[in-house]
Amino acid sequence: MAKLYHVPLSPFCRKVRLTLAEKRIECELVEERYWEQNPDFLRRNPAGKVPVLKIDGRTMSESAAICEWLEENYPEPALMPKDSDGRYEVRRLVAWFDDKFHSEVTSKLVYERVNKKVMKQGFPDSGNVKSGARAIKYHLDYMAWLLDRRRWLAGDSMTLADFAAAAHLSSLDYISDVDWNRSDTVKDWYAKIKSRPAFRSILADQVPGFPPPAHYADLDF
Amino acid sequence: MAKLYHVPLSPFCRKVRLTLAEKRIECELVEERYWEQNPDFLRRNPAGKVPVLKIDGRTMSESAAICEWLEENYPEPALMPKDSDGRYEVRRLVAWFDDKFHSEVTSKLVYERVNKKVMKQGFPDSGNVKSGARAIKYHLDYMAWLLDRRRWLAGDSMTLADFAAAAHLSSLDYISDVDWNRSDTVKDWYAKIKSRPAFRSILADQVPGFPPPAHYADLDF
Repeated sequence: MAKLYHVPLSPFCRKVRLTLAEKRIECELVEERYWEQNPDFLRRNPAGKVPVLKIDGRTMSESAAICEWLEENYPEPALMPKDSDGRYEVRRLVAWFDDKFHSEVTSKLVYERVNKKVMKQGFPDSGNVKSGARAIKYHLDYMAWLLDRRRWLAGDSMTLADFAAAAHLSSLDYISDVDWNRSDTVKDWYAKIKSRPAFRSILADQVPGFPPPAHYADLDF
Repeated sequence: MAKLYHVPLSPFCRKVRLTLAEKRIECELVEERYWEQNPDFLRRNPAGKVPVLKIDGRTMSESAAICEWLEENYPEPALMPKDSDGRYEVRRLVAWFDDKFHSEVTSKLVYERVNKKVMKQGFPDSGNVKSGARAIKYHLDYMAWLLDRRRWLAGDSMTLADFAAAAHLSSLDYISDVDWNRSDTVKDWYAKIKSRPAFRSILADQVPGFPPPAHYADLDF
């Protein structure tokens, strides 16, 4: 069986978990405290970070590269469009969330509030938290703008772009940092993706010392 | 004709420039001072960063998504392997350089020494410069380890992974931050890629206030 080394609130790990589950690939989850620099783990991934996926005799890292490999080797159901322009738009949006959204929002909120405590790196920086709380509004508005024009973020079918976005938002929702009243369009999109069977394992996550709010796993949030 | 909005020392822009040139796609270069937040530019790319490529009636951003689109629409010469495992390895290494190498090395050296001055954001932080100078050694050793086992970084043919790595190293070489004596293997690899016609425009770059060292454009460096 495949094995994924992960941490529960990492948006990069959650994107890979969603992709594996949507494609119905059975996978054992192994929590990896990568910041403790376990030598066995560094042998598996010289980059020293999660996710790391062991599958079909391979050991793979880098979430975007993993998801493209899964899409090529387990093509059903498709999470990438058939046309090149559609694939470009998916890749652009995956990079938007994993790069821009991550540095402006996720790293400023989840990392400050949760990772710092778990990794024993001190207290949240309030300037960062404020900046993240401000930036997420702009990103939710951008998502609403896209979703007013398309059924899913990158077009008319659900793709890796939706999983990338949902991975970040679900990690933020675990610490109540998403204002679902800001946009009905975005809330409807999240309700659709949250109710998929692939989402179940993510809604069952528990981080010791950080119990999720009641609405986190509720499909009628 | 295609048009690329760029800044000369950006490794992300350089990767796209190398890909365009290798595929013999004619392209006009337009320098874009993106940090001045020109509204016209923000209309072209809501992410507010370079590179932005206008081509065949499209406006595209995010360097990795652009390069994959170019590879799919201008397949000759191929810069991605035909097999899925080979493509995974290219994508893993592109992410290695554009994410890990960028945050540990390029952002600590090129951004501190050059971008801060050009963007009028103060003086280089000596702690960052020292940390970047230390980290590049480990990365050069990792490249040497790969190149002792393969002709090119991701395998037996030249790919986008080589262009990603060369884009970062060439920006660092412009400010003399690469110790070419550290590894003959890496130096030989860079000599091979530097002598390609696709590299010419990059070797002709000039940043006002930062003249390149004599060895920068020299093919026998």
